[in-house]
Amino acid sequence: MKKFLDKDFILQNTTAQTLYHGYAAKMPVIDYHNHLPPDQIANDINFQNLTQVWQYGDHYKWRAMRTNGVHESYCTGDKTDYEKFEKWAATVPYTLRNPLYHWTHLELQRYYNIDKILSPDTAREIYEEASAKLSTPEYSVRNLLRKMNVKVLCTTDDPTDSLEHHQKIKDDGFEIKILPAYRPDKAMNVDDVAGFNAYIAKVEAASNTSVSSYQDYLKALKSRHDFFATIGCSVSDHGLEMIYAEDYTDAEIKNIFDRIRGGTALSVEENLKFKSAMLVEFAQWDHEKNWVQQYHLGALRNNNRRMMHLLGADTGWDSIGDFSQGRALAKFLNTLDSTNQLAKTILYNLNPADNELMATMIGNFNDGSVAGKIQFGSGWWFLDQKDGMVKQINALSNMGLLSRFVGMLTDSRSFMSYPRHEYFRRILCNMFGEEIENGELPNDIEWVGKIVQDICYNNAKNYFGW
Amino acid sequence: MKKFLDKDFILQNTTAQTLYHGYAAKMPVIDYHNHLPPDQIANDINFQNLTQVWQYGDHYKWRAMRTNGVHESYCTGDKTDYEKFEKWAATVPYTLRNPLYHWTHLELQRYYNIDKILSPDTAREIYEEASAKLSTPEYSVRNLLRKMNVKVLCTTDDPTDSLEHHQKIKDDGFEIKILPAYRPDKAMNVDDVAGFNAYIAKVEAASNTSVSSYQDYLKALKSRHDFFATIGCSVSDHGLEMIYAEDYTDAEIKNIFDRIRGGTALSVEENLKFKSAMLVEFAQWDHEKNWVQQYHLGALRNNNRRMMHLLGADTGWDSIGDFSQGRALAKFLNTLDSTNQLAKTILYNLNPADNELMATMIGNFNDGSVAGKIQFGSGWWFLDQKDGMVKQINALSNMGLLSRFVGMLTDSRSFMSYPRHEYFRRILCNMFGEEIENGELPNDIEWVGKIVQDICYNNAKNYFGW
Amino acid sequence: MKKFLDKDFILQNTTAQTLYHGYAAKMPVIDYHNHLPPDQIANDINFQNLTQVWQYGDHYKWRAMRTNGVHESYCTGDKTDYEKFEKWAATVPYTLRNPLYHWTHLELQRYYNIDKILSPDTAREIYEEASAKLSTPEYSVRNLLRKMNVKVLCTTDDPTDSLEHHQKIKDDGFEIKILPAYRPDKAMNVDDVAGFNAYIAKVEAASNTSVSSYQDYLKALKSRHDFFATIGCSVSDHGLEMIYAEDYTDAEIKNIFDRIRGGTALSVEENLKFKSAMLVEFAQWDHEKNWVQQYHLGALRNNNRRMMHLLGADTGWDSIGDFSQGRALAKFLNTLDSTNQLAKTILYNLNPADNELMATMIGNFNDGSVAGKIQFGSGWWFLDQKDGMVKQINALSNMGLLSRFVGMLTDSRSFMSYPRHEYFRRILCNMFGEEIENGELPNDIEWVGKIVQDICYNNAKNYFGW
Repeated sequence: MKKFLDKDFILQNTTAQTLYHGYAAKMPVIDYHNHLPPDQIANDINFQNLTQVWQYGDHYKWRAMRTNGVHESYCTGDKTDYEKFEKWAATVPYTLRNPLYHWTHLELQRYYNIDKILSPDTAREIYEEASAKLSTPEYSVRNLLRKMNVKVLCTTDDPTDSLEHHQKIKDDGFEIKILPAYRPDKAMNVDDVAGFNAYIAKVEAASNTSVSSYQDYLKALKSRHDFFATIGCSVSDHGLEMIYAEDYTDAEIKNIFDRIRGGTALSVEENLKFKSAMLVEFAQWDHEKNWVQQYHLGALRNNNRRMMHLLGADTGWDSIGDFSQGRALAKFLNTLDSTNQLAKTILYNLNPADNELMATMIGNFNDGSVAGKIQFGSGWWFLDQKDGMVKQINALSNMGLLSRFVGMLTDSRSFMSYPRHEYFRRILCNMFGEEIENGELPNDIEWVGKIVQDICYNNAKNYFGW
Repeated sequence: MKKFLDKDFILQNTTAQTLYHGYAAKMPVIDYHNHLPPDQIANDINFQNLTQVWQYGDHYKWRAMRTNGVHESYCTGDKTDYEKFEKWAATVPYTLRNPLYHWTHLELQRYYNIDKILSPDTAREIYEEASAKLSTPEYSVRNLLRKMNVKVLCTTDDPTDSLEHHQKIKDDGFEIKILPAYRPDKAMNVDDVAGFNAYIAKVEAASNTSVSSYQDYLKALKSRHDFFATIGCSVSDHGLEMIYAEDYTDAEIKNIFDRIRGGTALSVEENLKFKSAMLVEFAQWDHEKNWVQQYHLGALRNNNRRMMHLLGADTGWDSIGDFSQGRALAKFLNTLDSTNQLAKTILYNLNPADNELMATMIGNFNDGSVAGKIQFGSGWWFLDQKDGMVKQINALSNMGLLSRFVGMLTDSRSFMSYPRHEYFRRILCNMFGEEIENGELPNDIEWVGKIVQDICYNNAKNYFGW
Repeated sequence: MKKFLDKDFILQNTTAQTLYHGYAAKMPVIDYHNHLPPDQIANDINFQNLTQVWQYGDHYKWRAMRTNGVHESYCTGDKTDYEKFEKWAATVPYTLRNPLYHWTHLELQRYYNIDKILSPDTAREIYEEASAKLSTPEYSVRNLLRKMNVKVLCTTDDPTDSLEHHQKIKDDGFEIKILPAYRPDKAMNVDDVAGFNAYIAKVEAASNTSVSSYQDYLKALKSRHDFFATIGCSVSDHGLEMIYAEDYTDAEIKNIFDRIRGGTALSVEENLKFKSAMLVEFAQWDHEKNWVQQYHLGALRNNNRRMMHLLGADTGWDSIGDFSQGRALAKFLNTLDSTNQLAKTILYNLNPADNELMATMIGNFNDGSVAGKIQFGSGWWFLDQKDGMVKQINALSNMGLLSRFVGMLTDSRSFMSYPRHEYFRRILCNMFGEEIENGELPNDIEWVGKIVQDICYNNAKNYFGW
């Protein structure tokens, strides 16, 4: 009987333990995509209690609590922080086999040195101990990042963002690189014409230009892309159900843009053409600047309109979709590749049924110019758990080169999520360890250890050029 | 070397054995969805021999026999019962790794106390021993259910069914609850207009009303829904390739209904609109009465028309489809939820590629009002085997709360299928046992044992309100 | 710690080892589908060095090298053979967990008796030792096939092929059956009307007839089918994204053919109708002659047009697609079955998300006339690795009869690929061995050994009638 969450958590044999403790654990963290709020880092805030750092904004926990029959007032509502915490503590024992169970206890151990199991019995003492620590300088958000050995961290930012917080962090000389990422989802969201025109007004303000044509619009957005680069940005990101790759002409897109500006709603076909055109533009800019472009594909979002209206987006009403991914993805990447304008690219997939499609798609555009140029990203969102990681790692291993993988990222809204890097590393080391011990890989610890370190840190460092 | 099918079958470590023998095994069975014939229970019949109870109506066995090169006359044809049994006995050794191999020997052990391996060598003795037992009072179908510790059992019934057998069973004071389920598949099957009009005539007869408009039709079907409730029904069920969720207006549906009544075949679009409208109506009735609604999604049925014409439906010519499930499912559930008319719902999925989609879809509508309100149902049909169950349990665990799962059901046409509950329980206990022993879950047998008991029995009891 | 690639490679317990060494290993090989060049067998050539036998034409290795950042000149380009080998040797250590790592070292052991690990350190000695052996008579291609205990081998041939090499091999009295397979992909490829008309000219020449109508065309292709049969052919093969099963009339197809002959490009609908019609014709001929027809489904090909134009097809720019497979496949098989013209059929699937669909689809048409009449083929292309094989074997086991499976084939362009049969057999034996030792199968080695031998050899022998 192995003890729960001991030092060899997930590491089921000696080789796995050697790989993790001897090679993986010491590597720093490059968290190349997350949703952390830059203002909190700029102001180096402290959270007031465990609820604030753990439950504010965490839709994973809210979904679990709702499924457990907990009223919304304890999730996003007006209950006190401690009342909310009590409900979470009462839910945790019901999350056995869900990643929340592992994450919760990993986070208690790594940040607070608490190795108790969270339950109604331990709720009070855990809350008090953790909250007390959170109020000390050692637990400011910058110190939390230092504690987790983070070297680089990329947030997710709208093109209209001023990046003032990133600038302040840079000016402060904070030794951890906090970089923005260019995420222009709203800049191509023509589903809501009024909203889109309002967004254009924001682009005009941010770029200090006037937008009266499609060319103006591209120019304004491009100026923001340029500006992001001056603050150190070198990655873009897109959240899409699927890649849009309709045929279109420039004249069509100009005309569609004019219709939008006139307030006319678009047909489905026009909508798709417009999005297809924008995706190509963004991708060309990324290639010009040698950025890494990221595509998060496959989420079916905002399914519960009632709750969406009450609470807004990103509050836990999203799920996995079954979109057709293959043809359009190949067409889009091919369009860029055919003029030699395909930037380094990471594809994130939300439906594990598409893992093998993704793992082979990247091979179509890995042309020898850059090692691992096109990447199949780590298990995303609902797949960011042991089973999901194992499946992604296996698909990538069998159909590509795991050794060239840029590895883990948190993709999280929470400063508490960094142990997910450790979690990933343990899983990775365990997979190698098992195959070495059962004779499916040679017992060459030094080489496998090097590969592990590459996946944990070196590959990302080289790939992103940090 | 572990002995085949010993008392620790599937239970690969001590913790799994403790969980099963100490917690799971003793729990009664709630079989909330199956296809057992209520007349056989009403009349408390005895089967005459092993072939009749095992092979009549069992398309799983027929498919295996046909694949093994056995002529149809031994499956559904006119060979004698013993000739049919001999062919089955000769096929069993070729079913290694198919669930039939496990089910067959589990059923021989549990019902007949026979622990021989079925093969041509043992066919005669097994047939005689089991058939002899079947003719005794101890083996009447009610006693078979008692032997399996069944507390509640829901059959599957057409709205036009008189439910006379259910009434008789109730009048007899049979201590096991035998309840009907409202399955209106034929009530929305407008693919065959003549057949549909014939069906409407049956609805008229059953409801003792005349149907000359869509409103009449709804009223008549609703009166059957009401009637089912008086017999104790509190579940509905639907067998669909996918959820239909087209936009429609009431005027359109009324007009479509009138066209059907006039004998006009529908366009594809009209067909889908009509089915979409009916699904919403049924769901609203389920919500009004606080029933549980079940959707069996993803089967591609009646693929072999030659054999279908010879033998009829449900004779083994169905398979798994690859329908698009996400958008329509979200739209349908959202439509109901937006007016607060979404009943407790169980989604059954036939294509394991959609497991993760389903496991996350339920989270979109678990709003805290009822624990586990929207359920991802247990591995269905072709997935009702170890690999299928493990995948369903893992998807549910990782993306929802396994602890709130209402667990296993037989979905079977046979009185011999109850050991599938045991099979499921062993698999469940083994999964928990492995993670406890390898340190991925804490060694808290009491708590995990409680969760296991909840999944085996208590959750269903609370969820269905029995 | 088990030694890498020792005699019990992949065999994790004693029972698995007994099954493999005592039953599987000695069985001969029937390689019923591959892409080996018949001229090389006809001329019984020797390869000049390890690069030529290993890297010429091997798009698996090229993809890995490109992903590893190796320039194209070392893959398909003009670098010297040894320079190419050096780059491959430098890539191998980065292929850990990819099947290439296992294949590479299995092939070095089995053909050359070299058990070193390939890396830059060992590149020179391995190259020299293997190349020296390759130049000896013992390493002629016929001797390579003898060394691998091959009994039958089917190549893949265009209907216009003269089959002169097959004739020569036959005339030589070579004891290994080298048979052609009829692969008419080009005969239905109307995507490119000019290319298709050029192809028709080749058909005219090969069949020595003039083609001025659809009936002429069918007659000419049929005469090639007949001719193939005279050389011993009894299998056909088709590489398709998905099965085409549009409704069509003979008049429509005749008209479409005339339009093609007139140089008119087809609409999407016409294109699909034409392909649908051709598939039925081919299938009817296969049934007439009691051939086995094979369908390779699900590849998304030639995604990188830039590299495709530079290097041609089959150079490593293909991937897994997500086509809709269910309905059309059922419709096509049903069309043939309904007139009792469904030949023995093997379905190969490239997207593992469709494994269960395929495994159940075959059951719809297994009607008892031939054991295992409709087969779910072994893991194909990207799925031809341990994880892919395990998934295919599990899906087939759970939803069909593994015992009736015709087993492994190489589907390879290389004479070095035969250890993949061994690889498959080890995986198969290990799966049985694990379930026997953990009590999920009875410990009946003799029977399981027989099943293993059936899957390795006897089933294919009986199924194909060799």
